[in-house]
Amino acid sequence: MKQLTILGSTGSIGKQTLEIVKSHPDQFQVKYLTANQNIQLLAEQATLFNIQGVCVSDRNLHSDLENLLRKRNIEILSGRDGLIELSGRNDIDLLVNSLVGASGMAPTIAAIKAGVDVALSNKESLVMAGDHIVSIMQKTGANLYPIDSEHSAIWQCLRGEIMDQVKKIILTGSGGPFRSRSLDTFSSIKKEDALNHPNWEMGNKITIDSATMMNKGLEVIEAHWLFGMSDDKIEIVIHPQSIIHSMVEFKDGSIKAQLGLPNMKIPIQYAMTYPNHMEGSLPTLDLNTIGTLTFEPPDLEKFRCIQLAFDVLQCGGSAPAVLNVANDEAVFAFLDDQIQFTDIPIIIEMALNTHKNILNPNLDEINEIINWTKKYVREVIKKRDKS
Amino acid sequence: MKQLTILGSTGSIGKQTLEIVKSHPDQFQVKYLTANQNIQLLAEQATLFNIQGVCVSDRNLHSDLENLLRKRNIEILSGRDGLIELSGRNDIDLLVNSLVGASGMAPTIAAIKAGVDVALSNKESLVMAGDHIVSIMQKTGANLYPIDSEHSAIWQCLRGEIMDQVKKIILTGSGGPFRSRSLDTFSSIKKEDALNHPNWEMGNKITIDSATMMNKGLEVIEAHWLFGMSDDKIEIVIHPQSIIHSMVEFKDGSIKAQLGLPNMKIPIQYAMTYPNHMEGSLPTLDLNTIGTLTFEPPDLEKFRCIQLAFDVLQCGGSAPAVLNVANDEAVFAFLDDQIQFTDIPIIIEMALNTHKNILNPNLDEINEIINWTKKYVREVIKKRDKS
Repeated sequence: MKQLTILGSTGSIGKQTLEIVKSHPDQFQVKYLTANQNIQLLAEQATLFNIQGVCVSDRNLHSDLENLLRKRNIEILSGRDGLIELSGRNDIDLLVNSLVGASGMAPTIAAIKAGVDVALSNKESLVMAGDHIVSIMQKTGANLYPIDSEHSAIWQCLRGEIMDQVKKIILTGSGGPFRSRSLDTFSSIKKEDALNHPNWEMGNKITIDSATMMNKGLEVIEAHWLFGMSDDKIEIVIHPQSIIHSMVEFKDGSIKAQLGLPNMKIPIQYAMTYPNHMEGSLPTLDLNTIGTLTFEPPDLEKFRCIQLAFDVLQCGGSAPAVLNVANDEAVFAFLDDQIQFTDIPIIIEMALNTHKNILNPNLDEINEIINWTKKYVREVIKKRDKS
Repeated sequence: MKQLTILGSTGSIGKQTLEIVKSHPDQFQVKYLTANQNIQLLAEQATLFNIQGVCVSDRNLHSDLENLLRKRNIEILSGRDGLIELSGRNDIDLLVNSLVGASGMAPTIAAIKAGVDVALSNKESLVMAGDHIVSIMQKTGANLYPIDSEHSAIWQCLRGEIMDQVKKIILTGSGGPFRSRSLDTFSSIKKEDALNHPNWEMGNKITIDSATMMNKGLEVIEAHWLFGMSDDKIEIVIHPQSIIHSMVEFKDGSIKAQLGLPNMKIPIQYAMTYPNHMEGSLPTLDLNTIGTLTFEPPDLEKFRCIQLAFDVLQCGGSAPAVLNVANDEAVFAFLDDQIQFTDIPIIIEMALNTHKNILNPNLDEINEIINWTKKYVREVIKKRDKS
């Protein structure tokens, strides 16, 4: 019986993780759950899954959560400190980190420091602190299991293979909702257009990242840290049907790919059951029904975020953290109707140009950079509002 | 330095094997070569690769071959006995069996009996004597490495995986030159039409097998023996571009595929270098250039050979051997303008219906069945000629 913690259990990945747990009651037991603000659902989940402890990140909701769970013997934590403390507990086998954005980094680090394996949906952890995380993993022996469909695909393709015989990693991307839209019309893109992803049902932040294709850029950086591949060995191919989830090319020219319907359940379950492919009520791909798969190169002019991601990866140091935090802030501002869709890469580039890159930043420095970038981007947005 | 024997070195697979040897002179040394009749090329190869011994299957060509190789210190064998004797030598590391048709079976058995690993292009070996071959392998510890692009793909996808977590094997097939041709016009198919394969350059026999789709049927039987999968766990998907070479679906619904250009060099080299993916001047797939991959179910009415193969696999015993030999004979008769294209499945079915199935045939019985089937089919064809 695998003991689990799920960070962000009320979000899209968290809920699907609990569905998998529910369909394999003999395999998994969930010990801890955390949510940002949705205490109603968190309390329901805690009751249904007989949870030992919960944490709500918003400290103001602590007593409301206590009321919801009164008479139940459930430990209740709250706030950022509570989240980090709970993430660092080692009385579990696997921590599923499905937090969104930069706030997911510290919990990942807390878990692997405690020697606990992490099923990682929070790509920002590796984007911002990849170097640190890899060196802690080497010390504690903890493992990172990717939940992203692309990285899960690469991980599956690399199974049993010899890493120095890999020629390159080929990340596929759907191209998002604006793949065929003319660049001239990008400035009139509304939030509703960007939230309407053709293939994947995901949270809002990642859906916007998919529309700007920053999502693919962040995945390039994540792949670099997960699989130790340099930027010149990572390629992006646009594949609108999202059936081939990614590929690995070997030195002899042989390519391995992992395929499936665009549904997160397979990668989530694989990260939970690795090295096993466990039976489940997961949707099955029938290529005869799909009929056609297409491929095209990414348009780097339309999707500037991709090039920005390759640039910061080559640059190294603290630049990826700035890219990531600036993107977080810009996307939330766009979702809040404060800026236009086309402002997102402009604002990120401004932050990167203003920031002085620090090579090998320590964690304190990364936290400083996070704060600086947040402040910088918020000020830039405020100024834009006024002008 | 890997020591090799190449059976059928003057054929398509044999020549490509020698090209790979030539481009990796530090990795491979060829010790023995065999050919059916093309002694001119065999002698050239023997000289170029500094071969220790050669065999020509046609005993009448022995002295001509001696003349061609006079003054060179090369052992010369001939005839069927020479071929089998040479195949059973254990002073090599790998025997590449690229013989065509039923005659490839005995050399495969001789090699694995001698404990020598076999890179197998001759699918008829497993189709006719799969049960025997698997039990000899278990005794001697010899391995079979598939050279067929489809089985190489499956083998690569299974790397590092747990066999009982495989849900099914999905063999892809181009559909051959007559995929879109109407069944009404099949009786007017000429040899030249059937030899004109859209994607693959192969020998004549296998090209006709591809046109009737018996090739895919034989591959189903081969996959059964190579990977221990029952017939209900083997599927065929038509994929006209021949880019995805085959797939494996696991119990969680995850599918792995191996991709490459339709070129035999990658599977040949992989079988020679396993478990390594060795660099080489092999052609590289660019999916952006290919653009589109399509999939459709096979048409079992048009391509009756597929259903015949599934039937004999379910039937077991000596039926697969009859299917294979009857197909060999029918295809050679078609290539010799003795029968029509549409006669091929009819003749095979006649042989299967006339034959009395023997469960667990021993090798003597298989040889008897081979002889009976050859004779039966030749008589049927003779009668047709007269009528």
